[in-house]
Amino acid sequence: MSKRKGTKITFQIDKEKNFPEWYDEILERAEIIDKRYPVKGMPVLMPYGYQIFENIMKKLEELWNKTGHKKVLFPTLIPYTLFKREADHIKGFEEQVFWVTKAGGKDLKELLILRPTSEVPIYYMFSLWIRSHKDLPLKIYQTCTVFRYETKATKPLIRVREIPWNEAHTAHATREDAERQIKEAWKCYDELFIDWLCIYGLKLVRPEWDKFPGAEYSVTLDILMPDGRILQAVGNHFLGQKFSRVFDISFETKDGGRDYVYQTCYGISTRTVAAVLAVHGDNNGLILPCTIAPIQVVIVPILYKEREEDVLRKCRNVEKLLKEKGIRVLLDDRDETPGNKFYFWEMKGVPVRIEIGPRDVDNGTVTICKRYNREKIQVKDEDLMEALERVFEDIMNYLREKSKEKLEKSIVNVKALDELKEAIENGLIARAPFCSIEMDGYECAQYVKENIGGEVRGIKFQSSETPKESDKCIVCGRKAKYIVYIAKSY
Amino acid sequence: MSKRKGTKITFQIDKEKNFPEWYDEILERAEIIDKRYPVKGMPVLMPYGYQIFENIMKKLEELWNKTGHKKVLFPTLIPYTLFKREADHIKGFEEQVFWVTKAGGKDLKELLILRPTSEVPIYYMFSLWIRSHKDLPLKIYQTCTVFRYETKATKPLIRVREIPWNEAHTAHATREDAERQIKEAWKCYDELFIDWLCIYGLKLVRPEWDKFPGAEYSVTLDILMPDGRILQAVGNHFLGQKFSRVFDISFETKDGGRDYVYQTCYGISTRTVAAVLAVHGDNNGLILPCTIAPIQVVIVPILYKEREEDVLRKCRNVEKLLKEKGIRVLLDDRDETPGNKFYFWEMKGVPVRIEIGPRDVDNGTVTICKRYNREKIQVKDEDLMEALERVFEDIMNYLREKSKEKLEKSIVNVKALDELKEAIENGLIARAPFCSIEMDGYECAQYVKENIGGEVRGIKFQSSETPKESDKCIVCGRKAKYIVYIAKSY
Repeated sequence: MSKRKGTKITFQIDKEKNFPEWYDEILERAEIIDKRYPVKGMPVLMPYGYQIFENIMKKLEELWNKTGHKKVLFPTLIPYTLFKREADHIKGFEEQVFWVTKAGGKDLKELLILRPTSEVPIYYMFSLWIRSHKDLPLKIYQTCTVFRYETKATKPLIRVREIPWNEAHTAHATREDAERQIKEAWKCYDELFIDWLCIYGLKLVRPEWDKFPGAEYSVTLDILMPDGRILQAVGNHFLGQKFSRVFDISFETKDGGRDYVYQTCYGISTRTVAAVLAVHGDNNGLILPCTIAPIQVVIVPILYKEREEDVLRKCRNVEKLLKEKGIRVLLDDRDETPGNKFYFWEMKGVPVRIEIGPRDVDNGTVTICKRYNREKIQVKDEDLMEALERVFEDIMNYLREKSKEKLEKSIVNVKALDELKEAIENGLIARAPFCSIEMDGYECAQYVKENIGGEVRGIKFQSSETPKESDKCIVCGRKAKYIVYIAKSY
Repeated sequence: MSKRKGTKITFQIDKEKNFPEWYDEILERAEIIDKRYPVKGMPVLMPYGYQIFENIMKKLEELWNKTGHKKVLFPTLIPYTLFKREADHIKGFEEQVFWVTKAGGKDLKELLILRPTSEVPIYYMFSLWIRSHKDLPLKIYQTCTVFRYETKATKPLIRVREIPWNEAHTAHATREDAERQIKEAWKCYDELFIDWLCIYGLKLVRPEWDKFPGAEYSVTLDILMPDGRILQAVGNHFLGQKFSRVFDISFETKDGGRDYVYQTCYGISTRTVAAVLAVHGDNNGLILPCTIAPIQVVIVPILYKEREEDVLRKCRNVEKLLKEKGIRVLLDDRDETPGNKFYFWEMKGVPVRIEIGPRDVDNGTVTICKRYNREKIQVKDEDLMEALERVFEDIMNYLREKSKEKLEKSIVNVKALDELKEAIENGLIARAPFCSIEMDGYECAQYVKENIGGEVRGIKFQSSETPKESDKCIVCGRKAKYIVYIAKSY
């Protein structure tokens, strides 16, 4: 497809200083999405962007399959009468709903909505599927798209009106088993985010006023973006028996009684792609983890007259070898200067470049160059695979370390409102004593939002972080019950 | 999930005599879909059914990737103003459209529709992406769902209102290259249908009055179902320059001129799943090709007192071995009689069963049983993998042969209307001389439809089948220009 920016060869934007510009530009230049599709908030996922998304989803689905989740596909349309059954849920989503009112030229008798999320239709079916404790736990997932009429400004991959995502839903015989499920899901997401995507985030229990509509409690993974804003990348929700009572999902217990199931649901979306691009990229463009890069290695021939055939032959041999080893490799033999190719593939975030010139042909070597620091190493042909393995590992470790360090450095303890203000202004995450994350803390959180621009994101999940006896809420001065994290958010 | 038919253990319906009943029952019993979802024509794809669908799609996507198609994801919603640009296209689909008229509590200014197919939005973007002959050919595909408000009776997987499918769209610099693409697509679909799914069908050029709305011509793959009706399983359409002129998809040619691109599009849907189930199944249930069976081998322990541990240990060893070899295997160690397990997995269509009893433990053997003919062979442990490979091949060959033979036997030559009537009544495909498949043959085709109940499906693609000098159209008696295929259809 035609490059949309024809002449400009290098990519050079200060990511930390001009993140919004960097983000918009790189999405276009690297051909991640095309936002010229003529419906607001609904961009096209382009081949390169789609492959990144799919590589993430493949890993996640592998994790779900391994832990006994079954893949299904539910319809996109939900009868409105069904949707409105759970009161909190409908309150949380009604303003964001797309309505299908006509079909085949006629007004529909039963109004339909485009799913903003799938609890309601899935749990309706759960009530038909679940009869006995032998049917439990029931764990399903689907990869599909959901629709939300966002009224805030849309932002590609982050705040869109059609959201490609993966959602999982589970039902359990006991509260304990459902709580265990929340933890199992986190294990999988940890493997995805830390091991595969090299991203560290904060696992937070969200305040009562900001939990998923219909949940008992919500735990999220909050990722710090380069502009100091938080991106919620995972939502993992404990639903308890709220939905099962409404949808009558009951079962015969082991001892012959009846009970309602305990439920959980969790999901990630294209926001994960946004996080990967934003967290790892630098001023020259993207830097992709080897695990999900559509192209892991690009081979660039360094051509000199009369040695062209030699060089290209060697390039093709290396390409063949890597392909056989299961590496996603591309030989860039376009009629372009090596320099332009370097810039182009650096911008695209390809983790490793292999350069092969006449001297490499003569010496039986190749040059390996790492995207993240442009370091070059020369290796003997026979050592290539081993060297590449080490380089891949080095890249993954570097990205992981950098993300961890950046997150840790961005968290600051604050004890007073002026300290909080300074932290938020500097794009940091503030760690503060706070009165409450139950509804009685709502007013203090609103104060923070309106006067400082930060949001009380919640308390650390499964942590022993507790305020000292003497700690006071930074807003109201009452005794602090929690240590909360406060940041600007998307 | 709870079995919906609890007590009934065997499945026994005469597929050829009672196909509609067989089809409805097996979809439910084998847990392919659940049609109790409360929107008409939109069933839930259950785990077992979804896996079959996904296994088919994986193979197809592999074929597209190999032939240079790129995967993308387009939005589900299309602005109506964009949709109505191509006159034939809108005429063909307008009556089937779902309308989104409201969102976020307000009426939308710009009406949106749920895509009934994606030519229009994709070609709008093509006009932005394609600038030069260097951008051509452009070949993309997506796996998604489309929506059609069917007014005919809905039928799970066959005629539904939300259709999970895979559609590909291509653009070319010349008519010849686009025609080549139609053939390349057929090569891929042949590999999918014949090699992978063991299904033979008829590749037909559809009559002018029945082609895809907006196409120059359409070629379809027609599959004969057990009730003698034809199911269109593939649509492969040559669009010529019809859309490119409307959407201004033009490019700079090699010699510096400008031209409009030539286009093709093609797709398959969950109908492919319906075809696989219906063509191969028998009176005891499903028979799945090894390539796409969610479970390829089921191991059933034959337990006798005091030898239970021995037998189970051996079962687990065999399970482990097969897993390591990449075979999708399940050890059924439920507390059920072997007989019930046999019936159950036969109904589910698992191609191979391995039985292991105490004698097998003593003799170092296992018993392999083929689903399609229940033939049992005993093999030595050390020969298991080799024997299994042969059995897989035998199954695939058998299914392929049977499908081919059935199709060939179902085609009969007819020369007069009473012969046609008899053929159609007997659930056969009639091969008849016909006046025309251009618009001047429409009246004769209508006559056939109204008086005989058969449909003129078209002429064989890329074939030299021509009428004899003396052949007359079976309806009007004019000189026959074509040999057409006539059958009842879905």
